[in-house]
Amino acid sequence: MDRYTVISSDCHAGLPPAAYRDYLDPQFRETFDMALPMQKAMTDKSEQIFLLKEINDDWRAGVEAHLSGAWDYQQRLNVLDGDGIAGEIIFPDGITQQNSPPFGAGLSLPTQNIVAELQWAGARAHNRWLAELCAKNPQRHFGVAVCPLLWDIDEAIKEVQFASENGLGGVLIPLLTQGFKPYHHPHYDPFWQACEDCGVIVCFHSGAAPMDEFFGEGFPESDQSQYPGAVGIYISEVFFWTYRPLIFMLWGGVFERFPELKASITETGQGWLLPPMLRMLDHHFSDNEFSEKLGDYRGHLSMSPTAYFRRNCAVGASCMPRADAEIRHDMGVEQIMWGSDYPHPEGTWPYTRERMIETFKALPEDDVTAMLGGNAVKFYGFDEASMNAIAAEIGPLCADFTA
Amino acid sequence: MDRYTVISSDCHAGLPPAAYRDYLDPQFRETFDMALPMQKAMTDKSEQIFLLKEINDDWRAGVEAHLSGAWDYQQRLNVLDGDGIAGEIIFPDGITQQNSPPFGAGLSLPTQNIVAELQWAGARAHNRWLAELCAKNPQRHFGVAVCPLLWDIDEAIKEVQFASENGLGGVLIPLLTQGFKPYHHPHYDPFWQACEDCGVIVCFHSGAAPMDEFFGEGFPESDQSQYPGAVGIYISEVFFWTYRPLIFMLWGGVFERFPELKASITETGQGWLLPPMLRMLDHHFSDNEFSEKLGDYRGHLSMSPTAYFRRNCAVGASCMPRADAEIRHDMGVEQIMWGSDYPHPEGTWPYTRERMIETFKALPEDDVTAMLGGNAVKFYGFDEASMNAIAAEIGPLCADFTA
Repeated sequence: MDRYTVISSDCHAGLPPAAYRDYLDPQFRETFDMALPMQKAMTDKSEQIFLLKEINDDWRAGVEAHLSGAWDYQQRLNVLDGDGIAGEIIFPDGITQQNSPPFGAGLSLPTQNIVAELQWAGARAHNRWLAELCAKNPQRHFGVAVCPLLWDIDEAIKEVQFASENGLGGVLIPLLTQGFKPYHHPHYDPFWQACEDCGVIVCFHSGAAPMDEFFGEGFPESDQSQYPGAVGIYISEVFFWTYRPLIFMLWGGVFERFPELKASITETGQGWLLPPMLRMLDHHFSDNEFSEKLGDYRGHLSMSPTAYFRRNCAVGASCMPRADAEIRHDMGVEQIMWGSDYPHPEGTWPYTRERMIETFKALPEDDVTAMLGGNAVKFYGFDEASMNAIAAEIGPLCADFTA
Repeated sequence: MDRYTVISSDCHAGLPPAAYRDYLDPQFRETFDMALPMQKAMTDKSEQIFLLKEINDDWRAGVEAHLSGAWDYQQRLNVLDGDGIAGEIIFPDGITQQNSPPFGAGLSLPTQNIVAELQWAGARAHNRWLAELCAKNPQRHFGVAVCPLLWDIDEAIKEVQFASENGLGGVLIPLLTQGFKPYHHPHYDPFWQACEDCGVIVCFHSGAAPMDEFFGEGFPESDQSQYPGAVGIYISEVFFWTYRPLIFMLWGGVFERFPELKASITETGQGWLLPPMLRMLDHHFSDNEFSEKLGDYRGHLSMSPTAYFRRNCAVGASCMPRADAEIRHDMGVEQIMWGSDYPHPEGTWPYTRERMIETFKALPEDDVTAMLGGNAVKFYGFDEASMNAIAAEIGPLCADFTA
């Protein structure tokens, strides 16, 4: 191969809000019609407070057609081909928050001020549409179904089965479990069992964090001066809230009880923090003065948490910077899966090929092959021959990555 | 000097529970008498669940007299002299949880299931006793007053003034602000102002974490199997809950508004995570694709959060391992203050001299001088000549640290 086979471990897709109506179960459409203007208002407000509206508007200007690949299949293919991406993992929320599923069924899966039944309805609407999108070329598009797990395990298991039967290979579950049982609790075992049985991968994607603590309750616009630096706090903590559920699962022995279960964490920010976190998990699993006084908290594990991580988990390294590629051995070359984050504004598009080269230039070809696509092919179960066939046409030339 | 001047940045002291009675304001003594057996029962239960009772009993056996230095001044001096420690920073909670101030006024300063008025009363009892203890040799003992800040700013300011007027140089405030305003909120400005005005140092000490999430509500003993790995999760997260309030203060501009304010974080575990955290704060302060879309969250800061950290903060490196000494330049040599954690079971006593040598052997003498004591002398404001005079008698010989 003179081209790399590239899989983006982090892409997003979502319909324009009004278009979700047709995918909703009919009994929710009246509520949807009432909620739509409110959702629009909340999106606008969120853009004003959390993302800067002018920056986003500026970024969108003139590239609306390309960004419409968030829902338009032909535009999406144009972007993927242009970026040199053979296969992709698809999370919800298209262009920033503008294409979020209804009723709070988007990427961050909040549970506060949310009606469980409606969030499920929104998730199912999105999942139906996503299944249609991926069915256009199932080998190229790996869809992640939205699954608001915390409300009801049985409903969640049904959604795992729906995903499995409809060509969606992963389920997105909430990062924050506040007020619900945490993920080391055996309460979730039937869910992990279902995922393992169906070969459906548990996916965590960064974004959610305890915003109320950063911005104050309800994020009142008038009160921004009362929460100085809130955004700085958010972006400094967001990695932690993404690692956290996995750390609960690792220590809780989830991967001991379900050795075939797979879980990924995606867009966790700079990779500097992952190697010391893994080293710390190993340290705490080994004997030391600190752990000795705390009694037996390891007897239910046959391996260290880090060893489960290496066996069962992988990391979606969105817009991976050069610095992360340089410490790939500390992070674990086999766990790193490059991602473009299209169509989010912090993503690599429209400079994907340049950014890939910047990140991986002059590194050993085997490592680049693994990080750009090989690891994702294995972890998410893409058909390697199909991916290579597409990459042979559109993939970035290996020669461009040599010094 | 042929000996190092050693300051322990992390020591603990506390009365046997019943002895706090005499230091309480009289109106709380009846409640104290009722609560004492309950506090004893809770300590025992906590030892059974969280610390392993047998391990602690085993550790205490035969060294009860030395551990009584938690409250007995002469025994304390014997231990300090034996350890080669000239000066010390004193936090609450003596031998594990056995010498905690009454009414939940101990190290972790919980707010759940706590009566504010009683916690204040317990804190004041401890602070009165601690002031007496430190007054026996104010140059050698730097006491940290317990300050349950979250309930009431005005009460907290009074306690800062009490500390200042009674020879206590620091105030311990809660790590967890859940349900209360977080530390970037200007609500706390009068408190920071009082600390700055009085030259009282804000101290954070690790320990508190959202235990309910790890162990379940009320930590029922019968339900341990329902929270497998809870202790592993706790020890993997505890660093984060200790860094967190400082990160809120750094981004919130607290050190911008109060440039003379000082804050320390103590016993934050292995130092591997601090350098990447600092690097991340710097990264998020600088321009980059990710931060650009989030608007202006830096305009109120004249320096990066890490720069404030270097100027206004320091780290109590309890039982510092060799690995941390080796990465001292990443952590910032000038921020590292060694600590013994006496009389806690994970502390260096009774092997303090051996452990110091193990940690610092063959490192440049200037660096060792700074980390073992010089930094703490400057940060906490010890009298250098007094400390050197004591160290000349009892300090560890520099020659023992050469290769």
